[in-house]
Amino acid sequence: MKISILTLFPKMFEGFLDTSIIKRALALDLIEIEVIDIRDFSDNKFRHVDDTPYGGGAGMLMQIGPIDRALKSIAGDPYVLLTSPKAKPYTQAKARELAKKDHIAIICGHYEGVDERVATLVDENISLGDFILTGGELASMVVADSIIRLKKEVINPDSLDEESYDDGLLEYPQYTKPYDYNGLKVPDILLSGDHQKIARYRKKMALYETIKYRRDLLKGRKFTDEEKGLLKELVQELKG
Amino acid sequence: MKISILTLFPKMFEGFLDTSIIKRALALDLIEIEVIDIRDFSDNKFRHVDDTPYGGGAGMLMQIGPIDRALKSIAGDPYVLLTSPKAKPYTQAKARELAKKDHIAIICGHYEGVDERVATLVDENISLGDFILTGGELASMVVADSIIRLKKEVINPDSLDEESYDDGLLEYPQYTKPYDYNGLKVPDILLSGDHQKIARYRKKMALYETIKYRRDLLKGRKFTDEEKGLLKELVQELKG
Repeated sequence: MKISILTLFPKMFEGFLDTSIIKRALALDLIEIEVIDIRDFSDNKFRHVDDTPYGGGAGMLMQIGPIDRALKSIAGDPYVLLTSPKAKPYTQAKARELAKKDHIAIICGHYEGVDERVATLVDENISLGDFILTGGELASMVVADSIIRLKKEVINPDSLDEESYDDGLLEYPQYTKPYDYNGLKVPDILLSGDHQKIARYRKKMALYETIKYRRDLLKGRKFTDEEKGLLKELVQELKG
Repeated sequence: MKISILTLFPKMFEGFLDTSIIKRALALDLIEIEVIDIRDFSDNKFRHVDDTPYGGGAGMLMQIGPIDRALKSIAGDPYVLLTSPKAKPYTQAKARELAKKDHIAIICGHYEGVDERVATLVDENISLGDFILTGGELASMVVADSIIRLKKEVINPDSLDEESYDDGLLEYPQYTKPYDYNGLKVPDILLSGDHQKIARYRKKMALYETIKYRRDLLKGRKFTDEEKGLLKELVQELKG
């Protein structure tokens, strides 16, 4: 898979591309990342790629020309994304969908805005959520990162199975050494060696964490009989 | 304001800290960013800061000791955030709230998890949304970026007033030069010079964009009389 990133700030990606998990993916040829400087496609010697908005208003807008030419410079036929507030918030389902593509291109928008006609070059807008960033660079790294980690070989495939959201619940609390940290101890059940009991405890705690932090994730959920039993226990314990 | 970031991958922040808008904020002393390598607080010569989970399971967990010591090394009394799926998705309201603090610290969690007892050191969990990343580094950059850009002096204060979400609507479409790009033209009303007409057109288009992309943002909204009129027009036009 290939990810082409079109940006005004190519240097911002250096640290990201140099991180262990990304490097490993690149080394394994699971993914190719190409960072394209939109300014290289400016039509003037000042390398300007923005101008003032028609009809007045604050800030500068990114022009369509440089973006169009930058896209055309890419070999192949990528699925084109534009970072923009005009999209539903990004989700893991969207990450899975994008991870199936052979080639995506991400245009990093900037907060003052992008000429509306750029929409004609774009397959889909992408937004991380309801908050405002100075530009689309971090959003494009987030999208790239979420896709790359789905390429199973990059990480331990066992971890993928157990993690947050995949069964619709948050992850259960986890503990590692030391057993006792300034009086804070690991729950004894985890040292019992009884795998069934541990699995049951973890499921119960996953339910508890989800109710506590993200009750909304449970909307419309069909609980199994085991889960119903665990929920009853939780209610009893919270009352008691 | 100061932001202390605790991470296993300090190099990942270099590109981010070197970006123009962040650099400007740092130069103006509006913000101080400190990146702390958690491995510097390991208690072994291998600089290990993780271990296997009690009770079994895949992956390694970040230990409490190094994180605790890294936090204690910070001068002052920061408000401590942990990147974690156990939080409601990040919002612009949360960015505004955090921007009012004198000092925040962000612990970058990793996807295999963090020892649950770290929760005792943390004021609040922070999550970008319902998607999974390899680690909390990008999330902490997003949080830092969203806060920094709220420091008025960093950007043109006029732009802050007009942008997405602030009046509960998405931004209207914007256009810049050239007027005609391969047959794609700027709407003529924007060249009319009639500021009242332009303002009305923009409001109408902002409503249209919001309905198209994020109808959910309109839930419970009290529309002004002007907005109601514009909505009627939109309905007529879409029918016609």
